Amino acid sequence: MDLSTIYGPVQEDLSKVEDRLKAVSKVDFSHLSELLDYSLKSNGKRIRPVLTLLSGKFYEYNFDYLLPMATAVEIMHTATLVHDDAIDNSSVRRGRSTVNELWGEEKAVLLGDYLFAEAGALTATTQNLRAIKLFADTLKTISSGELNQAFNAFNLRQNRQQYFQRVAQKTAALFCMATESGVVLSQAPEESIKILTEYGYNLGIAFQIVDDILDFIGTEEELGKPVGSDLAQGTLTLPAILLLERYPKENPVKRFFNNRDEQDNIKLAIELVHNSSIAEECYQVASDYCAKACHNLKLLPDNASRQSLKTLADFVVNRKR
Amino acid sequence: MDLSTIYGPVQEDLSKVEDRLKAVSKVDFSHLSELLDYSLKSNGKRIRPVLTLLSGKFYEYNFDYLLPMATAVEIMHTATLVHDDAIDNSSVRRGRSTVNELWGEEKAVLLGDYLFAEAGALTATTQNLRAIKLFADTLKTISSGELNQAFNAFNLRQNRQQYFQRVAQKTAALFCMATESGVVLSQAPEESIKILTEYGYNLGIAFQIVDDILDFIGTEEELGKPVGSDLAQGTLTLPAILLLERYPKENPVKRFFNNRDEQDNIKLAIELVHNSSIAEECYQVASDYCAKACHNLKLLPDNASRQSLKTLADFVVNRKR
Repeated sequence: MDLSTIYGPVQEDLSKVEDRLKAVSKVDFSHLSELLDYSLKSNGKRIRPVLTLLSGKFYEYNFDYLLPMATAVEIMHTATLVHDDAIDNSSVRRGRSTVNELWGEEKAVLLGDYLFAEAGALTATTQNLRAIKLFADTLKTISSGELNQAFNAFNLRQNRQQYFQRVAQKTAALFCMATESGVVLSQAPEESIKILTEYGYNLGIAFQIVDDILDFIGTEEELGKPVGSDLAQGTLTLPAILLLERYPKENPVKRFFNNRDEQDNIKLAIELVHNSSIAEECYQVASDYCAKACHNLKLLPDNASRQSLKTLADFVVNRKR
Repeated sequence: MDLSTIYGPVQEDLSKVEDRLKAVSKVDFSHLSELLDYSLKSNGKRIRPVLTLLSGKFYEYNFDYLLPMATAVEIMHTATLVHDDAIDNSSVRRGRSTVNELWGEEKAVLLGDYLFAEAGALTATTQNLRAIKLFADTLKTISSGELNQAFNAFNLRQNRQQYFQRVAQKTAALFCMATESGVVLSQAPEESIKILTEYGYNLGIAFQIVDDILDFIGTEEELGKPVGSDLAQGTLTLPAILLLERYPKENPVKRFFNNRDEQDNIKLAIELVHNSSIAEECYQVASDYCAKACHNLKLLPDNASRQSLKTLADFVVNRKR
């Protein structure tokens, strides 16, 4: 199923989010305006704001609050990408040059700060203290996760548990915030908030696992960035951990982490994943998380949003980018 | 007058802020804990949280809210310094190695993000939507000001007006937030909020002007960092603008901005400021801002905090670091 069908119940709302994103770059300072315009007009799938919009549709909601919240979620996501690319010195994302590549690292860091603040300001307009607290706590969790990843770069002694913990922090937290903020803004009972929060959490983990698989088995064209980027950055993802488990002695990941000049080993690791059942195994783990995500959706009111959330979980596992 | 006398009315409160700052670094993740501890245990003067505490003491206040707000103000300040040092590649601040110097730029950027989030989370605990909005808007203003400075690095065509605009954004905004958030949390009438907001704004501008003077006439020991850092970064401050006005043809600032290899010109610019009345003139501008800051304080209830705010303005102009 394609995204436009899944997004159906909130397609109009999403176009209003796009308008709001455009409005964010309307500032007096032309250099900043250009940076905002460039970073927010991405080729992204807008999954996170869609999660907020869909999650807000089960009970009584005020769209005047749901709209800035969904916009804030996307801006926060953009801010984290801008900072990630800056510190990783990445030059391409989603087939476009990164902000740091075009304007330099300094401006990318400051733009990211501005975007975090803009997301915070939009969240504040919801006047909902729970959503505001969630926003700040989520940013703490994400930064912790990123720091965790940075401190463990090129560290071979990482197991699955550590991987899942990091993924929960750096990716699932924002998915979780996306769904939780939406449902919190809709007078929902606590049990429903819990169901959608858990949905966001599990979907986020599945999403990241698939991202990590695609970094091995995708093409540069599909990914919009070089294949093998994670290994190149020294990030040990699930497929790499499985590779290390399967070939504990002679292993290209091990060789590369121990000697970063030997770039050929990245290619060898990719080949090894291609010629094994590792990707399949990882997909199974992602599928399990998606099943877990959807398990309790049936307890929510039956509507088009519920169906979309279910189908979105399938999309997350089957996507190519 | 020394700071401990000025801080008198809030000395006990300030020690509680210090406790709160220490509590922030008590996190499970040991690497993060170390980073937080190092960055928050600085040799700073803690002027900004003191402003929040003093500004909160004129009307009915709940210390359970004033305390996290004052703490948030200091953490936000720390976050901006951590990011500034990272993007400027500065190795020393306040006589200590910077976070980027010790842990690398990547970790400094992520630590700054975490600190912004922590400050936001603390602000949210005040449950005051005005303070929360102020927090987010202030971070937008500061990032804009920093971007403005970055885009104008080594640009000789900058006049006093542009300088004051930038200073208002990158420094006065946070001083303003410090006083405004304090008074907003104390059931104050709007006129008093306005008086303290303007006080913070004008004091902030004076503070930055003095900072910019000290970068020329201070010693490395007093400053805790190399003299002439602003010029080295390509930042045109008030003393430099006055130098350019006074010596429009042959000017070391001009020569250095046009050829950054000629580092000797920084020294020559410093000498030129030493041998002229430029520092004095800049001090006069700073004094005028301080007078403006204090002008309406007399309309506030007469108490020890009011006296401290007045004396603090004198300190800001006369300080050596």
